[in-house]
Amino acid sequence: MTTRILGIDPGSQRTGIGIVDADATGRSVYVFHTAIKLTDNENFALRLKQIFDDIGAIVDEHRPDEVAIERVFMAKNADSALKLGQARGAAICAVVHKGLSMQEYAPKEIKQAVVGGGAADKTQIQHMVGVLLQLPGKLQADAADALAIALTHAHTRSTMQRIGIPRTAWRRRR
Amino acid sequence: MTTRILGIDPGSQRTGIGIVDADATGRSVYVFHTAIKLTDNENFALRLKQIFDDIGAIVDEHRPDEVAIERVFMAKNADSALKLGQARGAAICAVVHKGLSMQEYAPKEIKQAVVGGGAADKTQIQHMVGVLLQLPGKLQADAADALAIALTHAHTRSTMQRIGIPRTAWRRRR
Repeated sequence: MTTRILGIDPGSQRTGIGIVDADATGRSVYVFHTAIKLTDNENFALRLKQIFDDIGAIVDEHRPDEVAIERVFMAKNADSALKLGQARGAAICAVVHKGLSMQEYAPKEIKQAVVGGGAADKTQIQHMVGVLLQLPGKLQADAADALAIALTHAHTRSTMQRIGIPRTAWRRRR
Repeated sequence: MTTRILGIDPGSQRTGIGIVDADATGRSVYVFHTAIKLTDNENFALRLKQIFDDIGAIVDEHRPDEVAIERVFMAKNADSALKLGQARGAAICAVVHKGLSMQEYAPKEIKQAVVGGGAADKTQIQHMVGVLLQLPGKLQADAADALAIALTHAHTRSTMQRIGIPRTAWRRRR
């Protein structure tokens, strides 16, 4: 039995989307990736609507069972944090509006799960996601990050299940 | 003919909501106010869902014609900016999901419209909103801010219409 996992890497310019199917051992198969590139719409509300609508459509098409998103600790400054927060809020609303719950992972957890070290850089993540999912060619960075988040969730849920931590307690822990 | 205006003052703890009916001259009558107080839910996604769902329900019940929101320039720090951004993103998605467009106003424009000076403090706004809408008793601060935003939109739209600026150009200006 596989679990379909949607990973989201929200950004004020581009929002990365990655979907994998994971089995109980955490082994994952590539399903889909894309980046929602925000059109240069001067209306800020319509930019957020685009994230909301596009993620809603992706959920409807691919029907993920679980969703994971990167936890943000620090943005460069208050202005970029506000913009990132708005994009993140739109992405989260799109997911919960479809009745799905969401798990957060710290950047360090994602690097640890995908590359094996918390200090990995973007290029290593792009490379390892390609290797793990047997994708030919170089992945676009936002999509690679989103797939990395999905892989992290696949890995974490299988570990948690293996050591017998019930799902509810696991969620509460975060 | 009156225009029903929904004003939103989003916050990571409380989101203020205020509704007025404005006539063509900008004169406004109080309709509704509330503050969406976020429950102390440890699940961040459900907190955003609450803003999204509550605003959706308020739109369904009161059927505003136009929506206005405060433009945010600076938050205290990147962490609070991110949280405010997420709340703002959820509020904006709720509105655009209902097919409504949204106008932004700078804090200075709101103070100018309601109190007559850009340097007004919170207490003056609370007081003047109460006076302008003939509300007895002291208004709660978030709701007063949301009603102030609605009143600013009522005032601005009537001015723009009076001096003959078409709605489309007016929107593009911002």
